[in-house]
Amino acid sequence: MITVSSEIPDHSLELRSLVTDQGTLELSLADVTPPTLAAGQVLVRMEAAPINPSDLGLLFAGADMGSASVGGTPERPLVTVQLSDGALRALAARVGQSLSVGNEGAGTVVAAGTSSEAQGLLARTVAIAGGAMYTQYRAAEASACLVLPEGTPARTGASSFVNPLTALGMIETMRTEGHSALVHTAAASNLGQMLVKLCLEEDVPLVNIVRRPEQAELLRSIGAVHVCNSSASTFNNDLTEAIAQTSATLAFDATGGGRLVSQILRAMEVAAAASAEYSRYGSTVRKQAYIYGGLDPSPTVLTRNFGFAWSLGGWLLTPFLQNIGPMRLGQLRDRVAADLTTTFASAYSDEISLKDMLDPTVFSRYSKHSTGEKFLVNPQLSD
Amino acid sequence: MITVSSEIPDHSLELRSLVTDQGTLELSLADVTPPTLAAGQVLVRMEAAPINPSDLGLLFAGADMGSASVGGTPERPLVTVQLSDGALRALAARVGQSLSVGNEGAGTVVAAGTSSEAQGLLARTVAIAGGAMYTQYRAAEASACLVLPEGTPARTGASSFVNPLTALGMIETMRTEGHSALVHTAAASNLGQMLVKLCLEEDVPLVNIVRRPEQAELLRSIGAVHVCNSSASTFNNDLTEAIAQTSATLAFDATGGGRLVSQILRAMEVAAAASAEYSRYGSTVRKQAYIYGGLDPSPTVLTRNFGFAWSLGGWLLTPFLQNIGPMRLGQLRDRVAADLTTTFASAYSDEISLKDMLDPTVFSRYSKHSTGEKFLVNPQLSD
Repeated sequence: MITVSSEIPDHSLELRSLVTDQGTLELSLADVTPPTLAAGQVLVRMEAAPINPSDLGLLFAGADMGSASVGGTPERPLVTVQLSDGALRALAARVGQSLSVGNEGAGTVVAAGTSSEAQGLLARTVAIAGGAMYTQYRAAEASACLVLPEGTPARTGASSFVNPLTALGMIETMRTEGHSALVHTAAASNLGQMLVKLCLEEDVPLVNIVRRPEQAELLRSIGAVHVCNSSASTFNNDLTEAIAQTSATLAFDATGGGRLVSQILRAMEVAAAASAEYSRYGSTVRKQAYIYGGLDPSPTVLTRNFGFAWSLGGWLLTPFLQNIGPMRLGQLRDRVAADLTTTFASAYSDEISLKDMLDPTVFSRYSKHSTGEKFLVNPQLSD
Repeated sequence: MITVSSEIPDHSLELRSLVTDQGTLELSLADVTPPTLAAGQVLVRMEAAPINPSDLGLLFAGADMGSASVGGTPERPLVTVQLSDGALRALAARVGQSLSVGNEGAGTVVAAGTSSEAQGLLARTVAIAGGAMYTQYRAAEASACLVLPEGTPARTGASSFVNPLTALGMIETMRTEGHSALVHTAAASNLGQMLVKLCLEEDVPLVNIVRRPEQAELLRSIGAVHVCNSSASTFNNDLTEAIAQTSATLAFDATGGGRLVSQILRAMEVAAAASAEYSRYGSTVRKQAYIYGGLDPSPTVLTRNFGFAWSLGGWLLTPFLQNIGPMRLGQLRDRVAADLTTTFASAYSDEISLKDMLDPTVFSRYSKHSTGEKFLVNPQLSD
């Protein structure tokens, strides 16, 4: 392989999450050797990787991090926490495996395999996805790299996949399945703000559901038209009214738990039934909701007061991308790259090192999914 | 029109269900005039119509029938019951409409329109579907009649549509959506027994879920291989084992409420994950459950411990039949007619008159969906 840097060390650090056969979760930094590259691969010096809600399940394994203790050494901290029996039952398949974490990130190509495609990426900033991003050096297929415009810092491209492609995927799903408007929950998130901008560009009516008045203001300030606050006493009426105005029959829910999905399906049904003859089986308007996250781990409760023409399911980015095929994926990726500093821009409240990830005062914050708090890991930071 | 009977009266009786603007439900017998027939229609003297669980929602409108009172006259009883505010909200669209009831039935063609198709049905026993079956005389399109083999009594053909086509529809849905085995709840019902026989004929592995040991015995006595009792302490393990053996990834649930659907999806996931690598998003095996009834009106509770590759939705016979198209529907109907006394045979515990339907001691029984109790209405019975 050919390198552009003489500074590639013969070992580097990588965050690991391990469920032990003692029933504990251990978080640590592993010393790993940067991999040898195949002809079509490049080595990326990782400089920016976001902590997304979708990273936390693998990282924390459902553990109560408030009861974690830190041992090891200052240079190589070891975070240990006891797992509950319930959590352990669901984790049997990963016991004993030291797992790397991090769904996406960006950095500089510092070495390349012998193919011309790989060589062409030397010294470029690229965004990549696929796990093991909380690491200092990561091999990637050259063909899978999203090449950022010259001069783009890694930070700008760190979140090029999960949120942008999920937002685009929601609209793509809406069109494929014959809907014409969307409902979105946890709508003040980075992803939610992206979706507001994207729907404005695409002329897609969007009903945003948030939990607090200041979140509603935030969304209105970037152009959101329909924002419903689920904590308001008028929520069910507000939601029905917004759904009636937009004719939304498709919802994406990031929370998963509680009665919110049921309330959304009910509001869709009330809006649909308002203009139809009575049927004890409910309206014939197809109502679809997808749960794509689990911010609320409590059970999903469905009151089923929305007829029989409904469907609820899980939605994940990876199978969606597999289904649309490489050509369409390429088009979506090109769009993300072109609009990275506008529609698909992400904001970060904190930039932290790999070691910071194991600091209780830090992980107590990034584990919370708080609106306005979004962490970026820079594996090159030393502290 | 041409008649084969001089006894067609100029008025006849029909059961009606009315939600009044006073917030009450009223059940009564209306005097109606037998309709004039169009060229392609026949007049059926209704002799047998089952009371299916799917009839009760329209009939009782969610009322607590235990608090009903009976007025009117002995010949024309009037059952009245106050509806709860919750029930009323869902019924706004039917207030003031006197609705006829009954999804299917059978009887003798006593008059026909001028078309040759209609004429050809004179004096034949036919099964029909489409509402308003708890009536003494009903017009029907000749083309929509299922003509029973000569000499078949109406009672034998009374349940030719809802249960047989639902059972066939489950298998059809299974094949269309790429599954190879089924899970069925409330499996000791008339429909459930039909499905057991049909799956044996079709070589479709079937997991039956019942609530009591004697129901399990009943199903085993007619050939069921996998029967799980949801009241048993070993239920979750039994279910997972049966699903692992059958590779069932599709379930039809008649109950709707509680945690049963969640338990089924979980069992499918455990069976699927047993042979796969760990993924925090769960297995990639698609798990589908359909709710097609509401025997348990409590909310559906989903624990979501079954990954993201799942879908849950409502399933109804009518849209299913519309989707498969008239040619395939014709094939399914022919099959039902051929096997009415074997695979698709129905058993009835009670035969009652229209007036009996308004008798508190009778409706307190047929409103209960008890296993082994199945009521047949004979509108020609006078009592």
